[in-house]
Amino acid sequence: MFTPIKNKKVYQHVIEQIQQMVMDGTLKKGDQLPAERELAETLGVSRTSVREALRALEIIGTIESRQGEGNFISTSMERSLFEPLSVMFKLNHGSSQDILELRIIIETEAVKLAARRIEKEDMVILEQLIQALADAKNENESVIIDKEIHYKIAEITGNYLILSVLNAISTLMESFIKEARVRIINWQKERNLLLQQHQEICAAIIAKDPERAAKAMHGHFQTVIESMENLDPELE
Amino acid sequence: MFTPIKNKKVYQHVIEQIQQMVMDGTLKKGDQLPAERELAETLGVSRTSVREALRALEIIGTIESRQGEGNFISTSMERSLFEPLSVMFKLNHGSSQDILELRIIIETEAVKLAARRIEKEDMVILEQLIQALADAKNENESVIIDKEIHYKIAEITGNYLILSVLNAISTLMESFIKEARVRIINWQKERNLLLQQHQEICAAIIAKDPERAAKAMHGHFQTVIESMENLDPELE
Repeated sequence: MFTPIKNKKVYQHVIEQIQQMVMDGTLKKGDQLPAERELAETLGVSRTSVREALRALEIIGTIESRQGEGNFISTSMERSLFEPLSVMFKLNHGSSQDILELRIIIETEAVKLAARRIEKEDMVILEQLIQALADAKNENESVIIDKEIHYKIAEITGNYLILSVLNAISTLMESFIKEARVRIINWQKERNLLLQQHQEICAAIIAKDPERAAKAMHGHFQTVIESMENLDPELE
Repeated sequence: MFTPIKNKKVYQHVIEQIQQMVMDGTLKKGDQLPAERELAETLGVSRTSVREALRALEIIGTIESRQGEGNFISTSMERSLFEPLSVMFKLNHGSSQDILELRIIIETEAVKLAARRIEKEDMVILEQLIQALADAKNENESVIIDKEIHYKIAEITGNYLILSVLNAISTLMESFIKEARVRIINWQKERNLLLQQHQEICAAIIAKDPERAAKAMHGHFQTVIESMENLDPELE
């Protein structure tokens, strides 16, 4: 199962072994890891190294540490507090243009998959989200629901990787949506356009019409692009 | 700069503060972090907690620890040994179909951006990669060069986020390419088709012809899809 380790950066090897065991299917969601002491003995490393490795895996969201129970492979990875992609993006001076391009690429296609694959229960949820967007009491609420709609669509595709990519840039998505909404509302002098666009996107998905859905999403992004072009460059 | 911490999972807060400082631009690539002792004092936490947090950030690839010098925000994040997206994907029983869908979505559009934005020096590199693919002595070499071509195209888009997404699923991409190549070669009884397809993709990018490039990439993925359909389901 585990191979003893003879090397320098010890905690890295512990992590690599656990990661490898996930990749080859030996460890599955919810599986309990051996106790720290046992891991240290099997791998021939110090308990400190094992503890460092486990901490890092917990931060990344691969494992969950449960008080008095031990360490388990996470059942839900969405809780990871770390977003390596968002951090890398900031450090590399990524621009809003980059985020917009990736969103257009992924979401215009995702909406087609969602329209093909949506089932009854998700239709209800989309309708609830649209109602919530219409009822939102302020812009802070609207941003959260707006984002939720886009993530729900990614989830409806049934493609875990598409959802994961959006999850990995969650912080970037949120600030992007927030800024785009403010620009569009200031420019259009109303927030009704944004509501209508999200209504049309969701209606098309619920109608299981991929082309209509893609057209609606395209129209939505067109508004985002125009709001960016409309922006006084002095203000940036 | 740093805010003192009063809470339970101490190392997580240390990480959150450092992550936040990257996101708001306070910390930049190559910046040195305060010494462990100083961080511990400013944040009002133990040195152990600080050390745990720094280790985790090193593992994730956000910081580099240089012997005798201290901790620095990484200048190149590509070295991160951790791929959260690949690990999550495996744990959630993602399928080859998921990878294929994401690749088609991203790469068919990326190739258009690359064709619009390519500059002289990258034309030379693409030509070298194609020559290397033609000269590859065995399939192991071919897989590596095949993957490099796809990543080079992502890099030529100039969109850091597109490249980051592919980097985040590097292990998945590699095994996907490897398996697809084997299937296509066994089915077509030759590897010339794959070489020709990559030649045409690169030629279209170098000719700065986005539509031709997208058509070539689409044709390439069509072959991948057909090879999957062609597969005897008993063998899966």
